[in-house]
Amino acid sequence: MKSEPFDRKKHVYQNDAFTELVKDAVRFFNGTPVQELPPPEKFLGTGVYALYYTGSNDLYKKYAKLNRLSYGYPIYVGKAVPKGWRQARVSDRTETQSRELSTRLKEHSRNILNASDLFLKEFSCRFVIFEREGSDMISTIESALIKLHKPLWNVALDGFGNHDPGSGRYEQAKSDWDVIHTGRLWAEKCNGIPRDKNAIIDNMKRHLKNIG
Amino acid sequence: MKSEPFDRKKHVYQNDAFTELVKDAVRFFNGTPVQELPPPEKFLGTGVYALYYTGSNDLYKKYAKLNRLSYGYPIYVGKAVPKGWRQARVSDRTETQSRELSTRLKEHSRNILNASDLFLKEFSCRFVIFEREGSDMISTIESALIKLHKPLWNVALDGFGNHDPGSGRYEQAKSDWDVIHTGRLWAEKCNGIPRDKNAIIDNMKRHLKNIG
Repeated sequence: MKSEPFDRKKHVYQNDAFTELVKDAVRFFNGTPVQELPPPEKFLGTGVYALYYTGSNDLYKKYAKLNRLSYGYPIYVGKAVPKGWRQARVSDRTETQSRELSTRLKEHSRNILNASDLFLKEFSCRFVIFEREGSDMISTIESALIKLHKPLWNVALDGFGNHDPGSGRYEQAKSDWDVIHTGRLWAEKCNGIPRDKNAIIDNMKRHLKNIG
Repeated sequence: MKSEPFDRKKHVYQNDAFTELVKDAVRFFNGTPVQELPPPEKFLGTGVYALYYTGSNDLYKKYAKLNRLSYGYPIYVGKAVPKGWRQARVSDRTETQSRELSTRLKEHSRNILNASDLFLKEFSCRFVIFEREGSDMISTIESALIKLHKPLWNVALDGFGNHDPGSGRYEQAKSDWDVIHTGRLWAEKCNGIPRDKNAIIDNMKRHLKNIG
């Protein structure tokens, strides 16, 4: 094949509109109504959500304090994308009608309920639904919110969003999140050697110093 | 917590600018110079790439034909995102200086070289680098290109982008891609029962009918 001489510049995409658009979506996100966790109704759609903590657990008292007057500091940010999204295997119709986001928030609620030292009523959430072409923004906005807030459970305590690895795979260690918050049934089945609890807590404390 | 009554409408983000922006980036992508695979120089950056086939393999003659006059039909689309991107663990400086995209194209070249029935010189590529905040667009543009082109190796032949599962994990079956294109050393170590070759080829043929 004959090709033009290599010139990196010709391959770099520049568009400031993108930065503005992300800011607009983040502003919208921060202005949406805060709901209890899980929200009181099931709903259709995929999108991005944030969980806020305002309880009395000693590890998270900084979050409770920061969120006292307004919900500005999520402890976790996540996304629910349309099934088969990456492979483009779904039609737009299916995407719009799925309940992924609602289901994901319900799943998180169950995990928090199972944790021996957390109370579901101490959590609340925000979420934004992205429909049709807009669903392509989901990963971008999730990433922007994580970069902006550096939520503890995303950045300094791995494992909250994990799923049951399934039979035959319990030789792995339970996640850091499960070391700190015991109680998830499948996590307690994991036989591997988990990380040291004190080391995890030190890491969380270090991270919390930079929040707020 | 007291919260507003639930109203789904208040949680739906609407912004047509996003659709326009994705179109602009896809147009830019399609206008970038086509390069041989791998490109002649190493370069810095992360982003999105497409591989094009113009050789004489019987399975892919439709691609060779469609791409005869211009490179419009990729056989594979992929991305290279900054390391630690999802967890926001990297600084912008690190992102900009990584060679992820260049490395990924090199890796694909090696895999094609190892395949017994493919020739590297029959492939070429396009790639676009997204820098700084723009790197948040990478997944979105990859997804848009996959939806647009439905590349065979993304949608109807799984496994080209796979990595060596590593020792102790070779009980799994080799991927469909490795059934069709034998030769990757680690794939040949996989002991599981792979899918039937004829069934895979039927699936590829069915998919190719809808391309172009």
